[in-house]
Amino acid sequence: VDELSVAVVGAAGLLGREVLDVLDSRQFPTGHLRLLGTHRTAGGEIQRDGRTDKIALLGPSAFDDVDVAFFSAGPGVSGEYGPLAARAGATVIDLTSRFRLDEVVPLIVPQVNVAALAERRERNIVATPSAVATALAVVLAPLSIAAGLRRVVVSTYQGVAGAGRRALVGLSQETVDLLGSRGTRRTRFARPIAFNCVPQVGAVEPGGATTHELRVVEEVRKVLGEPSLALTVTAVRVPIFFGVGIGVTLETEQPLDVEEAAQVLRTAPGMVVHHGETDAYPTPADAVGTEAVHVGRLRPDVAAEHGLALWIALDGVRTVALDAVAIAEFLAREQL
Amino acid sequence: VDELSVAVVGAAGLLGREVLDVLDSRQFPTGHLRLLGTHRTAGGEIQRDGRTDKIALLGPSAFDDVDVAFFSAGPGVSGEYGPLAARAGATVIDLTSRFRLDEVVPLIVPQVNVAALAERRERNIVATPSAVATALAVVLAPLSIAAGLRRVVVSTYQGVAGAGRRALVGLSQETVDLLGSRGTRRTRFARPIAFNCVPQVGAVEPGGATTHELRVVEEVRKVLGEPSLALTVTAVRVPIFFGVGIGVTLETEQPLDVEEAAQVLRTAPGMVVHHGETDAYPTPADAVGTEAVHVGRLRPDVAAEHGLALWIALDGVRTVALDAVAIAEFLAREQL
Repeated sequence: VDELSVAVVGAAGLLGREVLDVLDSRQFPTGHLRLLGTHRTAGGEIQRDGRTDKIALLGPSAFDDVDVAFFSAGPGVSGEYGPLAARAGATVIDLTSRFRLDEVVPLIVPQVNVAALAERRERNIVATPSAVATALAVVLAPLSIAAGLRRVVVSTYQGVAGAGRRALVGLSQETVDLLGSRGTRRTRFARPIAFNCVPQVGAVEPGGATTHELRVVEEVRKVLGEPSLALTVTAVRVPIFFGVGIGVTLETEQPLDVEEAAQVLRTAPGMVVHHGETDAYPTPADAVGTEAVHVGRLRPDVAAEHGLALWIALDGVRTVALDAVAIAEFLAREQL
Repeated sequence: VDELSVAVVGAAGLLGREVLDVLDSRQFPTGHLRLLGTHRTAGGEIQRDGRTDKIALLGPSAFDDVDVAFFSAGPGVSGEYGPLAARAGATVIDLTSRFRLDEVVPLIVPQVNVAALAERRERNIVATPSAVATALAVVLAPLSIAAGLRRVVVSTYQGVAGAGRRALVGLSQETVDLLGSRGTRRTRFARPIAFNCVPQVGAVEPGGATTHELRVVEEVRKVLGEPSLALTVTAVRVPIFFGVGIGVTLETEQPLDVEEAAQVLRTAPGMVVHHGETDAYPTPADAVGTEAVHVGRLRPDVAAEHGLALWIALDGVRTVALDAVAIAEFLAREQL
């Protein structure tokens, strides 16, 4: 495989930095590396492995001679510079929400629908789903193939890392203030998050669901290729830094008992199944720093016909960065 | 109403202390007050309102001349001394899990099934459900009456207060240790709880559900008088001190739109409905110190026929103590 010229837009952010780490740890054939940012971060430096790279300012010629451009600086930046990068000849891998539900942009979870990468030709932009949608797609895809999905109900327990680096500082500050009896100051969330749960991720839409909840549903449907999948999501921010937990209750079309489901999940890619011992289940803290989607508490839901319940834990930031780089690896192997 | 002689078993615990506070704040006609505890707490003192009361040791004659005995010292103590107190002539109000699913003991949520108090005659023991089951019963009962319940899926976000006073210290200590880089020490939970979520409340049973999950289902069925209600619970401990959040996705038998559901809930007792403005929803921290079961994020679940989703927040310890005292008030009015 030849070396590729790589750009990372949003390199100073939590997700951009994770993409850099994954490129290194997976020994991606990075030739020239260009770190890019907006006025807020351009000029800053990123240190890793003894190297120091400077963040350059996004601009019209920022993507000249770039083969692959990762975008993780927010949907606004992706919307403005993504098409520009693609026109300049780069394959854009967008980690933001900007193009996920765009009909002519493929939404890829490598373990599930990598074949859809071929659909990128029109725009040369590929999108990755949110961490929650990614984990759900990884777990639901093999269950759907094995037994069909009649109904899925999801509740999330999302750490603040999904909201970016400043959210980490926010939770830390709020926690210290509360423990130190300094009272609650301003919060970066819809409500104070320290020692609290906030059932709002994204904006509340007129119908009562949040943008995030609605998007997770549509993202999972798009990745699975099941546009009418009966999926309901309640998304809740919890006071943890990294890691995401997801409670899933589902009904399959065909009977699938717990041991069969465990076997189906074990043989599917991208998962670690914790099953067999009664207390074998993953927590978000256990999942942090790992590369897999962890599944546990697999059990029958006797209240429904063909009912199953399970629990998912993952490192959301790591998972999204890893999948983005995995997409680039596929593209590299087929020489873009 | 004549004054009543009251005993509180487990007065040193979080829940027992809350019962004392509620007796005071609601000006319960407490005549003689006897605080009782096991060897671990007997001899200790409880201070409130400038008064100091000593905790006496539980024993064979501890309930002589007691009219109402609240039990909150754990199921073991209730099992040993509850029947003894009842035989000595006291009406036992048990806040533990010991008698909740006992067929000859009524399980009471005052706002829902206070009429079932008459069934206590046989044993003279009345039980109250767990905080989660109480909140679900308060919310589901009027919806069931209005439109019937076809299916209910629940995920909980439970603060550590439900596990008692030492669990509060445990979360505090774990949090400080982690923030202070002292690493994770031993935890009081199945997994470290600081900045984590633990999908295990109670013991994991052979089928994969936990004791708490199974009990919540049976407690709600018993209070609603719907022994085959299709209810699925995933119970998760979250790193908050007080307060409980509950995500509920449900299907009704008859159509019931969101505005109708809001109206049904508003006119039912014991609830505060947050509805109308897009960000009108309660968090566990908002609910702490309040006496109501708070409902918000009421929205249609378009993925199911007659589907609704909603979010509940409450102060679990306060709610359970309050309901126990409310039961005593009913009994006092009918002179036991």
